[in-house]
Amino acid sequence: MTSTETIAQAALAPDELARVETLWRAANYLTVGQIYLLDNPLLREPLRPEHIKPRLLGHWGTSPGLNLLYAHLNRTIRVRDLNAIYIAGPGHGGPALVANTWLEGTYTERYPSITRDLGGMRKLFRQFSFPGGIPSHVAPEVPGSIHEGGELGYSLAHAYGAVYDNPDLLALCVIGDGEAETGPLAASWLSNTLLNPARDGAVLPVLHLNGYKIANPTLLARIPEQDLLSLMRGYGYEPHLVHADPDDDHARVHRRLASVLDLCLDHINVIQHHARTSSRVTRPRWPMIVLRTPKGWTGPSKVDGVQVEGTYRAHQVPLSGVRTNPAHLAQLETWLRSYRPEELFDGDGAPVETIILAAPAGERRMSANPHANGGELLKPLSLPDYRPFGVDCPAPGSVNAESTRVLGRWLREVMRANADRFRLFGPDEVASNRLDAVFEVTDRAFVADIEPGDDHLAPDGRVMEVLSEHLCQGWLEGYLLTGRHGLFTSYEAFIHIVDSMFNQHAKWLKTTRDIPWRRPIASLNYLLSSHVWRQDHNGFSHQDPGFIDHVVNKKAEVIRVYLPPDVNTLLSTMNHCLASRHYVNVVVAGKQPQPVWLSPAEADAHCRRGIGIWEFASNDDGEPDVVMACAGDVPTLETLAAVALLREHLPELKVRVVNVVDLMRLQDEKEHPHGLSSREFDALFTTGKTVIFAYHGYPWLIHRLTYRRTNHDNIHVRGYKEEGTTTTPFDMVMLNDLDRFHLVMDVIDRVPGLAVKEAALRQRMFDARQRAREYTREFGEDAPEISEWVWPGEPA
Amino acid sequence: MTSTETIAQAALAPDELARVETLWRAANYLTVGQIYLLDNPLLREPLRPEHIKPRLLGHWGTSPGLNLLYAHLNRTIRVRDLNAIYIAGPGHGGPALVANTWLEGTYTERYPSITRDLGGMRKLFRQFSFPGGIPSHVAPEVPGSIHEGGELGYSLAHAYGAVYDNPDLLALCVIGDGEAETGPLAASWLSNTLLNPARDGAVLPVLHLNGYKIANPTLLARIPEQDLLSLMRGYGYEPHLVHADPDDDHARVHRRLASVLDLCLDHINVIQHHARTSSRVTRPRWPMIVLRTPKGWTGPSKVDGVQVEGTYRAHQVPLSGVRTNPAHLAQLETWLRSYRPEELFDGDGAPVETIILAAPAGERRMSANPHANGGELLKPLSLPDYRPFGVDCPAPGSVNAESTRVLGRWLREVMRANADRFRLFGPDEVASNRLDAVFEVTDRAFVADIEPGDDHLAPDGRVMEVLSEHLCQGWLEGYLLTGRHGLFTSYEAFIHIVDSMFNQHAKWLKTTRDIPWRRPIASLNYLLSSHVWRQDHNGFSHQDPGFIDHVVNKKAEVIRVYLPPDVNTLLSTMNHCLASRHYVNVVVAGKQPQPVWLSPAEADAHCRRGIGIWEFASNDDGEPDVVMACAGDVPTLETLAAVALLREHLPELKVRVVNVVDLMRLQDEKEHPHGLSSREFDALFTTGKTVIFAYHGYPWLIHRLTYRRTNHDNIHVRGYKEEGTTTTPFDMVMLNDLDRFHLVMDVIDRVPGLAVKEAALRQRMFDARQRAREYTREFGEDAPEISEWVWPGEPA
Repeated sequence: MTSTETIAQAALAPDELARVETLWRAANYLTVGQIYLLDNPLLREPLRPEHIKPRLLGHWGTSPGLNLLYAHLNRTIRVRDLNAIYIAGPGHGGPALVANTWLEGTYTERYPSITRDLGGMRKLFRQFSFPGGIPSHVAPEVPGSIHEGGELGYSLAHAYGAVYDNPDLLALCVIGDGEAETGPLAASWLSNTLLNPARDGAVLPVLHLNGYKIANPTLLARIPEQDLLSLMRGYGYEPHLVHADPDDDHARVHRRLASVLDLCLDHINVIQHHARTSSRVTRPRWPMIVLRTPKGWTGPSKVDGVQVEGTYRAHQVPLSGVRTNPAHLAQLETWLRSYRPEELFDGDGAPVETIILAAPAGERRMSANPHANGGELLKPLSLPDYRPFGVDCPAPGSVNAESTRVLGRWLREVMRANADRFRLFGPDEVASNRLDAVFEVTDRAFVADIEPGDDHLAPDGRVMEVLSEHLCQGWLEGYLLTGRHGLFTSYEAFIHIVDSMFNQHAKWLKTTRDIPWRRPIASLNYLLSSHVWRQDHNGFSHQDPGFIDHVVNKKAEVIRVYLPPDVNTLLSTMNHCLASRHYVNVVVAGKQPQPVWLSPAEADAHCRRGIGIWEFASNDDGEPDVVMACAGDVPTLETLAAVALLREHLPELKVRVVNVVDLMRLQDEKEHPHGLSSREFDALFTTGKTVIFAYHGYPWLIHRLTYRRTNHDNIHVRGYKEEGTTTTPFDMVMLNDLDRFHLVMDVIDRVPGLAVKEAALRQRMFDARQRAREYTREFGEDAPEISEWVWPGEPA
Repeated sequence: MTSTETIAQAALAPDELARVETLWRAANYLTVGQIYLLDNPLLREPLRPEHIKPRLLGHWGTSPGLNLLYAHLNRTIRVRDLNAIYIAGPGHGGPALVANTWLEGTYTERYPSITRDLGGMRKLFRQFSFPGGIPSHVAPEVPGSIHEGGELGYSLAHAYGAVYDNPDLLALCVIGDGEAETGPLAASWLSNTLLNPARDGAVLPVLHLNGYKIANPTLLARIPEQDLLSLMRGYGYEPHLVHADPDDDHARVHRRLASVLDLCLDHINVIQHHARTSSRVTRPRWPMIVLRTPKGWTGPSKVDGVQVEGTYRAHQVPLSGVRTNPAHLAQLETWLRSYRPEELFDGDGAPVETIILAAPAGERRMSANPHANGGELLKPLSLPDYRPFGVDCPAPGSVNAESTRVLGRWLREVMRANADRFRLFGPDEVASNRLDAVFEVTDRAFVADIEPGDDHLAPDGRVMEVLSEHLCQGWLEGYLLTGRHGLFTSYEAFIHIVDSMFNQHAKWLKTTRDIPWRRPIASLNYLLSSHVWRQDHNGFSHQDPGFIDHVVNKKAEVIRVYLPPDVNTLLSTMNHCLASRHYVNVVVAGKQPQPVWLSPAEADAHCRRGIGIWEFASNDDGEPDVVMACAGDVPTLETLAAVALLREHLPELKVRVVNVVDLMRLQDEKEHPHGLSSREFDALFTTGKTVIFAYHGYPWLIHRLTYRRTNHDNIHVRGYKEEGTTTTPFDMVMLNDLDRFHLVMDVIDRVPGLAVKEAALRQRMFDARQRAREYTREFGEDAPEISEWVWPGEPA
């Protein structure tokens, strides 16, 4: 049996017991009120059908548990002067959190029209899940939330992200037993292997077993309790059980929960004190709580003769026929009156003194804690000048560089200069993506056993690596939402693993733009390397450039996509992204040696424009016959090689090269803030000439971005068309018709007048492709022109 | 300490010991050969640089462990006549699996040119990770694989899916300690709560701790061993440890592993016998193995003075400079010769008898087990006639139906008729998506504690519910890949959680189309309900129709998207999907009451065409002024309401209504097998008239699909533009300008000549929207015309 079962039920002073019980009742009352009541908020007249909302929406089941924990944490915050935030994993319990923030005054401070009196309560009830009102979940609108919770699975990773580099912060993280079944949550428990008790704050996970999901029991509530405790110990925690039955004496539960909370917080104090006073940090066994309460506790026990409390039927709205069924209406009134609202609110409808005293004051209120509105605490990054890290470019394409390796040197300086506010996140790919210069100034965070041969592991490391994109993303989101900065580097294909997490973060950014008290936070920056065109070790499973497509479906105001063609443009781009606010920036850049096209200064100017004509490669004198456009490092290389072939074989053809760094420049200015005007676009792409566009990803995205453009019908796009395997880089571009020879063939096919005249050249290109494929299949190498070719030299 | 540490090291008969050791050595030799050798496969002459591949690609580190387990499982298969498949979680160990399949003859049976002799071995080596050859991972090309493994996290879910309804099948599932850090894998352990030992087969998980990932140690290798064992017990397993040090005596390890394997298989026998002979099925404690071996075991211990074996440096290619560095070349030769190839292969290069005898025969070979080529075992579904389940439609729009609820009745009959080969998967949403009629013939699978109030839970249930889209998808994939059928129903927004899993499955389907011996499997069918337009309880976080966009990025040959506008078209569509082969079918359909537009027979005809003019709503006589196109149930409702307004207020306007069920009909026939020809498309959409297209998802997808069409420039699309919150359905369409009034305004704005003439009508529509929004905000209900409106009645 667990050691905690022997804990004496510490005396909870009568006044404190009264406060938690009263606060809990009040929050439960307000929760039910939000779900049901249009009017008559304090039941000062008998409840009538017209007081009831016509559509009953919301989730009751999880709410009493959320309220219970909130009330108890409030007590410990007051008693211990804790700096704490509350992460509601069961984010569908929105009305519970709204209730608490209103009771402690923050809601009215943020939304002055929702006063803390009868009139405000009426509005509070009415607005919930109501058109023009507030969402049903713990949305960004709720003070104190960093966690929408509409999509389950990320609460614990967010909690860990929030406390990194916040040594005094406690994140109480409520994890629903439904959420606990998700993969991301299951992986999150071991986040404690990267938490340094000396430098970081603490997470207190509360696994809330209310036993049911929408229609099913939860797994963790139905495995043997000893297995559950064993599981938590296996994850490295010391679990403490608190168990409440429907008919339990509330005072007993309060005493038990209070004593367990005190025990856990004492334990955390001991852990932190030990870590902060000893010379060596080891992995402690952190406390956690398993709280077992009936789903929908204190709600209707039975409805129409069927058990509701303690079952899945309590999940949303336990009484559904309130407007039409007098028995339901009466039962609702009995339920509401069971909280004795007349004892909770004074004549004006304001909370009574016991409730006021139950909450902490000022920024100690979890709903007013500035860590939960990270923009308030945001300190800008100190960004070292990136230009000295650039690679000299005596002539375009004359030298090669590994773009991400060079970037790593600048990132090393960023990490050095921001050792309190910047971290790098990656699924075991920081070194693979060649950013390992950062290890000259920091290590990988690791608080489990470290062995002699390990490479740059240390408890105070600032590079966060684990083989889980979900954890990297969740930690980074928690870190950003609490006012810090970071960069997530991943293989391009597998960033799709977090598509849905990205969705939710993008929605958070979009929504918070319209919430004045939410301050802008640092952007979520992705560096996708090991991209589709260079999966030499892996192959088809590792080839997918579609994250860009996924990202551009979100609101234009919050998303940015960059495809720097070389090392210097990568440096400039990343500098821009790290300084930006409240965006999602996606940067795709290769790690393999590739030509440097622009000097650092030229790169900077090109990146500021985001798109532009590369004069060094063009011979159009303002009147091109064909525009060769490119976006992405490999497509740029192939385009320039194609242009070299054209210059050699069709010297009279006027070619313009347009390179795109900032993909959203292609879109109309009315659709994206970075969009070019029609005039600007037409000036680059002409209004009627052939455009051959070599693009990094799925080709149709270019059509989507440009379909309103005058010259759209003449834009022909090459990109990844889902053809791949383990092969050479040049074979990859050939498989997808993106190679230089095919681009020349496209020019001949598409520029009016060339098809017949240049049939012989077309055949030569066709033959060159065939030879290249045969050569590759024979020798397994790049065709020699790829690795050795120098612009504007002559390809084979 | 674990009980297994007291197991006697059972005597492994000398001949069996020789077989496993010899097979292991041979497989390791062939693994190294594949990574390095172009020629001289059996070292019959001294190794020279020209025998080495110019590009060294592949992953050595995990391979010796995979080979060890393969050899041992082969022994138990022979001794026990097991029906077993091998799931290689560390799928990057491709050469290991290829080696074993070649040794046991299957490879040559599947690929006759790769003979089991010296010439074949040379080709085998050369083709690996070579242009025109085979991928580096355990790809679909590898006999015996159902698991590509390029993306980590899904092996254990696949293993469970494979053994459902296969009572005699054993899936040995190797889980790398890297993969074990992922969320999906972490969640998969508890799959044992839905495995019925009486009806289903067994999974034997082997957690292979080789200690390192690409650059980092693994978490599970660095937490205390007691925690790891506690974790496995918490998940409900009985863990058995096998530990090998670099210098370990191989015989000791073989004896230990053999005895542990025997113990586990005995244990599984006992569990299955007990479950199959007793009247009540309970959740057993299944055995599992923790195998701790050095990464890259038997490979080079040190390279250039640096430790490689047993560290992350063994992950890919331990000796990288073999072509240019004579010391590396010599070390490679020593390494290869350490396996004593002259003892492993005869003069012709064929495996010696010991190796032949080490493998099982015929279909008992894991690489030839038909369960791993599921199409071989596929029995068609018995599909009951769906038409009797259709809803009568006296006149279009005259009755309402909950489409998914009606579908549920037909699915009930599908489940009844296919109780050995069809399952329904969902993240606790089968009832929420109103398919609960299926519970009349089956239950939810649940093998943990069942309590009296639970709703349709039973160990022999065939509905698979857990709050993890990853598990639903992984189980279903495993079930399909082994030759069965299924349907995954999910909320539309959260299906993005499995974007990346879908990617890998779609790539598997695409690749296997070109592998003749891979037989087609049943399609992966998604039913996305609770879609973007009806998230009444939830709001913005639950609103995302972008899975369709994600899906259409994959190869046209394997993906299909359907948007049935009503209940009868949904029935017809789902019948088609369940009968289909080797596709991913995405079906989006609402669960709320919605108008029935077509009779069952009309629906059937419409679905066969996939797209068509709805004559009952059109008055164009072949010469429309405007085409009102729609795809999706809510957009269809709004379009028909808009057309009713047009008919009333602009009776002279010739309106054509085109409804799209099969979205890929919009694409060109050259781009998708379902695509319309230009002639067909133009016949529907005209070549110059205004098209107002109301679409279920992000509007730009319609542009992407139609950008090559003649009339593309006149197509104006309304859809979801990422505006949403918790509000009424009609407010949702208004927020996104998809409502009937706005569609009429679009017609007035876009059809030449109407803008000026019908300015008053436009203003009336504008005012009607304003009123509807005000009404909604006042009463929180749909505007009354939405819920009560009947085509062709007159909206307010």
